[in-house]
Amino acid sequence: MGTLDNDLFLRALLRLPTERTPVWIMRQAGRYLREYKATRTRAGDFMSLCKTPELACEVTLQPLDRFNLDAAILFSDILTVPDAMGMELRFTEGEGPLFDKPVRCRADIEALNIPDPEDELGYVMDAVRTIRTALDGRVPLIGFSGSPWTLATYAVEGGSTRDFNRIKSMIFDCPDDAHRLLSLLADVVVDYLNGQVAAGAQALMVFDTWGGVLSPRDYSEFSLSYMNKIVANVTREAEGRRVPIILFTKNGGQWLEAMADSGCDALGIDWTTSLSEARRRVGDRVALQGNMDPAILLSSPDRVRQEVKAVLESYGSGPGHVFNLGHGIHQSADPENVAVLVDAVREFSESAARATSRGLTAPGPLVDAVR
Amino acid sequence: MGTLDNDLFLRALLRLPTERTPVWIMRQAGRYLREYKATRTRAGDFMSLCKTPELACEVTLQPLDRFNLDAAILFSDILTVPDAMGMELRFTEGEGPLFDKPVRCRADIEALNIPDPEDELGYVMDAVRTIRTALDGRVPLIGFSGSPWTLATYAVEGGSTRDFNRIKSMIFDCPDDAHRLLSLLADVVVDYLNGQVAAGAQALMVFDTWGGVLSPRDYSEFSLSYMNKIVANVTREAEGRRVPIILFTKNGGQWLEAMADSGCDALGIDWTTSLSEARRRVGDRVALQGNMDPAILLSSPDRVRQEVKAVLESYGSGPGHVFNLGHGIHQSADPENVAVLVDAVREFSESAARATSRGLTAPGPLVDAVR
Repeated sequence: MGTLDNDLFLRALLRLPTERTPVWIMRQAGRYLREYKATRTRAGDFMSLCKTPELACEVTLQPLDRFNLDAAILFSDILTVPDAMGMELRFTEGEGPLFDKPVRCRADIEALNIPDPEDELGYVMDAVRTIRTALDGRVPLIGFSGSPWTLATYAVEGGSTRDFNRIKSMIFDCPDDAHRLLSLLADVVVDYLNGQVAAGAQALMVFDTWGGVLSPRDYSEFSLSYMNKIVANVTREAEGRRVPIILFTKNGGQWLEAMADSGCDALGIDWTTSLSEARRRVGDRVALQGNMDPAILLSSPDRVRQEVKAVLESYGSGPGHVFNLGHGIHQSADPENVAVLVDAVREFSESAARATSRGLTAPGPLVDAVR
Repeated sequence: MGTLDNDLFLRALLRLPTERTPVWIMRQAGRYLREYKATRTRAGDFMSLCKTPELACEVTLQPLDRFNLDAAILFSDILTVPDAMGMELRFTEGEGPLFDKPVRCRADIEALNIPDPEDELGYVMDAVRTIRTALDGRVPLIGFSGSPWTLATYAVEGGSTRDFNRIKSMIFDCPDDAHRLLSLLADVVVDYLNGQVAAGAQALMVFDTWGGVLSPRDYSEFSLSYMNKIVANVTREAEGRRVPIILFTKNGGQWLEAMADSGCDALGIDWTTSLSEARRRVGDRVALQGNMDPAILLSSPDRVRQEVKAVLESYGSGPGHVFNLGHGIHQSADPENVAVLVDAVREFSESAARATSRGLTAPGPLVDAVR
């Protein structure tokens, strides 16, 4: 345990030189792969898939067997945490996740269970250990969690929402309750991520899917401050190696500077911010991960190649870039296009690295911000 | 026709001094008002309400009779345009708008009808005339349209969408078709807005609800460039008065500079960008309209007042601010809170204006960006 055949991803996150740009894809183990659907059918339902370490391991490795990816990500769901806190998660066909016991008042918050990662969430830790063993050093394994704010939106709304009225009512009318809930969630997330590192996760990512629905002030107070707490309290080294942590706020392009102030190692960037612009703003402090529009994968192989090139050129030369989509891959994406994407990242970034090492000028950013 | 009892809104849009900050509310004639629901019930369905000028006028004036608002906005829907182009709009309970003839290929685009504002869209022009007469100079009347990009998303998807896969496939795979469609839509929107001005609209607003789902490059190419075309071609003066035009891209906070370059008079700002930050970036070129989180209206009167104060202070002293929400009012908002909002804007901005005119230092921005 500990040696890695391919540590490009970890090196890029620490802004160390790499011979090419590493690549992985958010939700790379997912419904766009027929083998994933087959395993999920065998599991019965989505949560059984998450809760059976051997099956979670199986789907985690499926995309690695198909594509030359540079990282694996634990197959799980961000809602394992509120589920383990007692909110009783169900997935319904068509309606998405539902909690039978949403959090609506202070008493609900105080009644929440503080899960032990190795007990109520032991199935996740077992999955991490199983996957690490199965990976056998091929690529690093990413552990992850939802951000406290994002978990709170599901906990309070009782499921998915379009308008976030209930959670916003809580922050506007009962901010002390909101802070109590977020603080508990942050503590649980720290334990959860530290458990994953202890079990073998080699990098961490925090998904703040819904931070972008807040005003700058409320984002700072109700989302970012709790991510800061996580960054400050998670294990940053294991097995003699740095464990980088990536923060990703969807629609958070306006707040990259503040996010970089957290002390994280890297930021996930969605496609509404150009990498050249993000790099100009925070690239001296953090690595950047992203940011192709996932809808490009519904297009032609030629267009995918063209867009991979544009994203790489937008980042420009030098270390600190992990190629990814700007959001999770869509279930109707063609796996053939994923192969094209992964190969194109390798091809274009290798040739750029060779050009740079020969002393040629690397291509500058062709894809600029709007102005 | 022509004299206005209250021109605060128009003056603020031209960044001229006003004795207080004018205020109106996006979707101010809407389901949060029981009198609106009563009129809609009488109309039968939503499109009949839009298509009956007397009823459209009735609901347009309802919020003005309740609240001290400084502008009226034509009651209509952005989808009148694709409907008039032949896509056959229907509204279904629960599912939202549906087009029976969505635009999926070049032949569909070439078959589109180019509507005459006074013919197929004559009911809108009649509504504008009816409302202007009924307003009798109380406040200015705002005309509006969806942006070409936003209209194209509905036209191509055939209704609402979460992932925009069809319209994105068009821009990625058949960009010439997309440009043809957007170009037609821009021409129709110019005619439509000019028709509204000829009929009596005294300010214009373009709603780009979905520009924020694009990358910076694609926003520039597929949304902003067509709004630029609109700004360059709409009537900017009528009845001896400037007709200001406001551009609003939801989730467009990263692109304010580029939007201001369009030559528009004002930008609508959603609540994810602080007004102090927006003003720092583009406030020397355009007025700003916004930007309270609509969810605040689900909170207490005290909290509404507190937030109104924070938004006004974020903008700071001096002209160029129109108070509004950062998005349309939610149907579950309490009308009492709207009254509180409107009165608070008047109270706080009048006292700030008095302080400034007495030579006192106006309050600086208390609500800053995240950093």
